[in-house]
Amino acid sequence: MRAITIPEPGEADALVPADVPAPQVRPGEVLIDVVAAGVNRADVMQRKGFYPPPPGESELPGLEVSGIISRLGEGVEDWQVGDQVCALLAGGGYAEQVAVPVGQVLPVPEGVAVADAAALPEVACTVWSNVFLTANLQPGEVLLVHGGSSGIGTMAIQLGREVGAHVVVTAGSQDKLAACAKLGAEVLVNYREEDFVERVRTATDGHGADVILDVVGAKYLDRNTDLLADNGRLVVIGLQGGAKAELDLRRLLAKRAAVIATSLRARPAAEKATIVAAVREHVWPLVASGRVTPIIHRRFPLEQAAEAHRLIEGSSHIGKILLDVGRMEA
Amino acid sequence: MRAITIPEPGEADALVPADVPAPQVRPGEVLIDVVAAGVNRADVMQRKGFYPPPPGESELPGLEVSGIISRLGEGVEDWQVGDQVCALLAGGGYAEQVAVPVGQVLPVPEGVAVADAAALPEVACTVWSNVFLTANLQPGEVLLVHGGSSGIGTMAIQLGREVGAHVVVTAGSQDKLAACAKLGAEVLVNYREEDFVERVRTATDGHGADVILDVVGAKYLDRNTDLLADNGRLVVIGLQGGAKAELDLRRLLAKRAAVIATSLRARPAAEKATIVAAVREHVWPLVASGRVTPIIHRRFPLEQAAEAHRLIEGSSHIGKILLDVGRMEA
Repeated sequence: MRAITIPEPGEADALVPADVPAPQVRPGEVLIDVVAAGVNRADVMQRKGFYPPPPGESELPGLEVSGIISRLGEGVEDWQVGDQVCALLAGGGYAEQVAVPVGQVLPVPEGVAVADAAALPEVACTVWSNVFLTANLQPGEVLLVHGGSSGIGTMAIQLGREVGAHVVVTAGSQDKLAACAKLGAEVLVNYREEDFVERVRTATDGHGADVILDVVGAKYLDRNTDLLADNGRLVVIGLQGGAKAELDLRRLLAKRAAVIATSLRARPAAEKATIVAAVREHVWPLVASGRVTPIIHRRFPLEQAAEAHRLIEGSSHIGKILLDVGRMEA
Repeated sequence: MRAITIPEPGEADALVPADVPAPQVRPGEVLIDVVAAGVNRADVMQRKGFYPPPPGESELPGLEVSGIISRLGEGVEDWQVGDQVCALLAGGGYAEQVAVPVGQVLPVPEGVAVADAAALPEVACTVWSNVFLTANLQPGEVLLVHGGSSGIGTMAIQLGREVGAHVVVTAGSQDKLAACAKLGAEVLVNYREEDFVERVRTATDGHGADVILDVVGAKYLDRNTDLLADNGRLVVIGLQGGAKAELDLRRLLAKRAAVIATSLRARPAAEKATIVAAVREHVWPLVASGRVTPIIHRRFPLEQAAEAHRLIEGSSHIGKILLDVGRMEA
């Protein structure tokens, strides 16, 4: 099958289309003929050699796909060949076929094209697990989403709005902020022009943020903990601004606040299955009803994965970037 | 009434016995004739001027008492004059009488003397709120308790043991560690002689600690996060080793771990009431059955509060230090 390989870590051109063996289907897995694959920042890290796949998983990049089930592994009962699905992967999505444990498979939601459904698994699972399962966002609370126009950001805004939270976002341009406003963000902070701490504090009458979803890490740690409200939860899911910074425990203690850092990919399959089940229960009905939608910025053919990486690294996009994977017969 | 006052912050002699007006009983409060008061490290901080009482609360030290209800404030229905109780306070415990919101009052558990019950509210509420409500300790998990022989430590060991967790402790002497072992601690680390990270990792076959209850803060932050297991929770409730230290978010992210810092005293009355209700439901039956017991190191008359402070500052005690408050008729 055709796939995107990484013979040597490096810049975008390190992504090399090649013919590779089709994946084995293990017991409890299904084989998916891929229609589209989502592009994530974690793929860029992997391409650069900084984010190796978990032991035993595919060496190919790609953390989510949509497509059609073409084979059932031993013991699989809840799915049929021909089912339209999307899936959360530990790797291997930039390919014509991928094998995945059934606990990570979701039906394509009603009303969504199979080619668009690849935009959903990573962002829905990331936002649900972090903002709801981990940080337990409640109606009426203030949710601050850094990078509101990213794939994750656009999903966080919509889900925060749906539970009745007040959503505050940061982004780097007026275009991006306008897109966030359209999705339901109530306070828009251009981080290139304004200090988000002061701005959010003023906008919330001094309350601050109950939950912060952060992809910056070290560079924002001090400002994020400064802005947390009493009982606030800072959830760090990216380290775009570095990993190490001074933490003021006295400030945290006075607020009874938490700093949590998580990633989805390294979780054991059982934890992923728990998250996927929660997403199917809580997020999928909102997508099927059209209240929450996948936001897709642009699509590229699989063979142009390098172009897709240049785009995501340039950070001008709003929403998800997808790869179209036309399955070719062997 | 007689009470211990702090005319000027300072060393132990800053605690000055004096006659002061009896407290007002506000609606929703009861007046307690104090039989005994618990001594806490937070009282030492307050005496030194570093930990002022929350706005509107008593200026007198003392965060917990036991005694007899002698008056009911407006609207109080669940208690009677003459009831034997203990209570969590925002302050004012080093005195013959104290007024407290009913949400912070607990009955003296069956089988416990009223004079001993003052050893329970702070440690039971602190351990239950942090180790169970916040960190959600589960059966089979590893709980590391720093300062296992302190009042909080002795309660954390017993409650950890009762839910079926494996309890690991640090302490500074063999006597203290022997006391911890008697209460159910399975791994004993003398922090003066051994590195707790290496020792606990070896004792748990590389697993590490699922939950850490820490009173040291900055000085232990790096080692504590190093020792956390996947999905581990570090709960910081004291800053005896400083407040500011470097946090490695990459390490936290790889483990999907949380750093949480909390205090009991600054919580709003409604949160305290929630914690007290949970303690009454989950901890009180264990105390009434004799499975969990208050560990009392030594008692002093109220007028010798300065002696009690010297003892707690010397850190040679095992368990709680109490003040006996004989009520004198006006």
